[in-house]
Amino acid sequence: MSSPLEEVCAEVLKRVTPAATERKQVLSLATRLVEKVREEAKEKGVETEVRVEGSVAKNTWLRDCSEIDVFMRVPTTMSREAFGTVCLEIAKKATEGYKQIERFAEHPYLEAIVDNVWVNIVPCYRVKRGGWISATDRTPFHTDYVKPLLDEQKGGEVRLLKRFMKGVGVYGAEIKVGGFSGYLCELLVLNYGSFVEVLRAAADWKKRTIIDYEGHYERRDDAKKLFEEPFVMVDPVDKRRNVAAAVRKERLDEFIAASRAFLKAPDLKFFYPREVEALKVKELVNKINARGSAIVFISFEGIPTVPDVLWGQLYKSQRSLRKMIQQHDFTVLRDDVWSNEKNLNIFIFEVENRFLPNMKRHLGPPLRKRMECENFLRKHVGADSTVSGPRIEEGRWVVDVKRKHTDVVNLLNEKLGDCGRSDGVAELVSKAVADSLEVFVNDEALKLYSANPEFAKFLTEYLEGKQRWLT
Amino acid sequence: MSSPLEEVCAEVLKRVTPAATERKQVLSLATRLVEKVREEAKEKGVETEVRVEGSVAKNTWLRDCSEIDVFMRVPTTMSREAFGTVCLEIAKKATEGYKQIERFAEHPYLEAIVDNVWVNIVPCYRVKRGGWISATDRTPFHTDYVKPLLDEQKGGEVRLLKRFMKGVGVYGAEIKVGGFSGYLCELLVLNYGSFVEVLRAAADWKKRTIIDYEGHYERRDDAKKLFEEPFVMVDPVDKRRNVAAAVRKERLDEFIAASRAFLKAPDLKFFYPREVEALKVKELVNKINARGSAIVFISFEGIPTVPDVLWGQLYKSQRSLRKMIQQHDFTVLRDDVWSNEKNLNIFIFEVENRFLPNMKRHLGPPLRKRMECENFLRKHVGADSTVSGPRIEEGRWVVDVKRKHTDVVNLLNEKLGDCGRSDGVAELVSKAVADSLEVFVNDEALKLYSANPEFAKFLTEYLEGKQRWLT
Repeated sequence: MSSPLEEVCAEVLKRVTPAATERKQVLSLATRLVEKVREEAKEKGVETEVRVEGSVAKNTWLRDCSEIDVFMRVPTTMSREAFGTVCLEIAKKATEGYKQIERFAEHPYLEAIVDNVWVNIVPCYRVKRGGWISATDRTPFHTDYVKPLLDEQKGGEVRLLKRFMKGVGVYGAEIKVGGFSGYLCELLVLNYGSFVEVLRAAADWKKRTIIDYEGHYERRDDAKKLFEEPFVMVDPVDKRRNVAAAVRKERLDEFIAASRAFLKAPDLKFFYPREVEALKVKELVNKINARGSAIVFISFEGIPTVPDVLWGQLYKSQRSLRKMIQQHDFTVLRDDVWSNEKNLNIFIFEVENRFLPNMKRHLGPPLRKRMECENFLRKHVGADSTVSGPRIEEGRWVVDVKRKHTDVVNLLNEKLGDCGRSDGVAELVSKAVADSLEVFVNDEALKLYSANPEFAKFLTEYLEGKQRWLT
Repeated sequence: MSSPLEEVCAEVLKRVTPAATERKQVLSLATRLVEKVREEAKEKGVETEVRVEGSVAKNTWLRDCSEIDVFMRVPTTMSREAFGTVCLEIAKKATEGYKQIERFAEHPYLEAIVDNVWVNIVPCYRVKRGGWISATDRTPFHTDYVKPLLDEQKGGEVRLLKRFMKGVGVYGAEIKVGGFSGYLCELLVLNYGSFVEVLRAAADWKKRTIIDYEGHYERRDDAKKLFEEPFVMVDPVDKRRNVAAAVRKERLDEFIAASRAFLKAPDLKFFYPREVEALKVKELVNKINARGSAIVFISFEGIPTVPDVLWGQLYKSQRSLRKMIQQHDFTVLRDDVWSNEKNLNIFIFEVENRFLPNMKRHLGPPLRKRMECENFLRKHVGADSTVSGPRIEEGRWVVDVKRKHTDVVNLLNEKLGDCGRSDGVAELVSKAVADSLEVFVNDEALKLYSANPEFAKFLTEYLEGKQRWLT
């Protein structure tokens, strides 16, 4: 008789392992694409080595979720600009007739949808190990490193881990998520041996975890000093790179907590969480009012850029705005940000009270600083800005001065309204905000809610405010 | 030509020095009282040494403010109870026909008003120096110590200092004030030489000041270790007693600040502050509303006890209530207490907001404490008390739970209402509160204001919130 843990894993493994027909289709499509790209490169006279990379190459993709990465390794003599010109042209030619999306993040590449499969055609330099020039030059080395070490059984363990991470919301190295990449999942399975062993280890991860699977460092302390991140997986193909550099502390913590919870009570919900059902409008209003806080929504129009840049700017602006609100003495209970990555972005700042008193305590110098006290008194006694005081409290001068911003909504409208600029708000966000800022409090946001089903789900989850697998 | 400082001091000295006629009257009344007490004691067969003590004996009283202290030194063989029985009877007999008030604080004595002069008739033990039994046994030693050292000129310096301290609100060792006693003023003048030199020194007093005029301690460090108070005046007649033990840190700070301000800009207002004029009701309402805070008034009936006990209990209860309010997450901006020492007491607590959200963040254990995390989740997931969460924030579990008290008025009514008991509220206060509690917010307190002119002045000053001499 098998344990609940084994049963759940067996069931999930069934669901995530591609069927033979899918494998055949995906692999043959990949082969065709490689040949097509080779041809087009030859046509253009570009010397290139074309290979399949990523989960398809390593046989670790999740059933019905394949994404084919075709890499073009070009000579280091080619200019960087060529990635965005001749390489892109080759990629376009190779997928002519299919839907194509040019991606110009740090690294230009082409996305295409071929026979319902997402395809990335990515240029990189053919370099010697260690001679990295562009960000994707390591990828073929990753494939070559992992492939011989992963058999069908280990591949299954990787699939389980990926599905688990997706289910608990920590999968993906993109900025939006800040979670675990596929390559990191593969290395974790290699290091610990299986999906369950990864979770058992994670459940016990302490403040800092450093994994050096290849044994690049003789002493763990050397690696400890070299990297700053709380979780470090030394790249087997590059000892100076942390494969987990993109993993944010929140995602790491969530993975640890989810691992513990799953091991304690194995359940399919960790892999396949229930879809969030948006609250009905009336329920929503009740829920918001029952909190008694002030939930402030800042909405503005889309920002024309790639997701990683968009989310980078959104997160940066979120932090700056939170800080700004706090510096004006409002107590921020929680904050979040949502985007449809097209035409609408929404910050949420939940504060204890929308309003603050009209005056604020201003601490002056301690009595022992005689000159400073004199200056303080000269400045505040009878000043227009003084509401009451100065007086001495606990050994220092104190005065109550008029508070400039007593309404968080006015504060935000003023700081963001004019030119959208507030200290630290990212540039693209500033621009979008300047053109389209709207600030709502509590049920004033119903309009946004009703018009955007995805935002409705997001806000419902926000109000729940708990890890998805905690039910 | 004299300096402004000298001019102000000369003017004040004129005002505080008793005229020859007053001196004659006071001294002859004192002599008569001493004789009367002696007679009555003899009548009762009580062996006693009767003497004038205090400012009259030392020629340091302020013009038109004499208070005659007549001490009865009785043998140590008498019981302590006798202070409240036979000694009191003697005192009563001696002042028969005049208004009399029995005082039963730590030390029973009689107050009487004889020919418009306040008289205290106080029993104590005739002990050898150091053999103190009751709290007032040292007084005759103080008189004997100070008297030969204070000539007419030095007496004038003491009068200036007393008047200054009264003016800036730091005079009086009673609990209500927690300031400087007359004896302490005398020692300060002896130590520094003159009124102005006391102020010059005070302006420079640091964190701790220790004065050992008699040189009881060879090393200042010994005195430093023995006493805890921030300001220490070693009693010349008792090396283990701090004459300034009653001086609270606030009063000390205020005296330091006032000394500096006066030396910088000498002015009569330091000695004779302008009377507070209570705001008109409309101005009051405007002032209160302009603050945007919530000023909560807790009124209750009188407490039948002597002022020192009353104020001790009021201050203790004020501290406890402040703490209780803060523990319920309300932000207390300032608080104060007023009493007419008869039939009405009022606490003031000014809070940032009357209302708090219905939920409150409850911090759980950090992730690394695995067992505690499990217990936390078991307790809070899906609980009735949970509003949202649990979720992980900055490495620890967090949950938003229902807040029990969202209205500071309800909180106070509940905590004080039933039996008047709240942790730390002094017993007599509890009882009075139980019978007569009323809680008002902002302009709801107009009733109290209009019915009690002294409270009206107090609240006006509270709203000003500044040291009296800062104009």
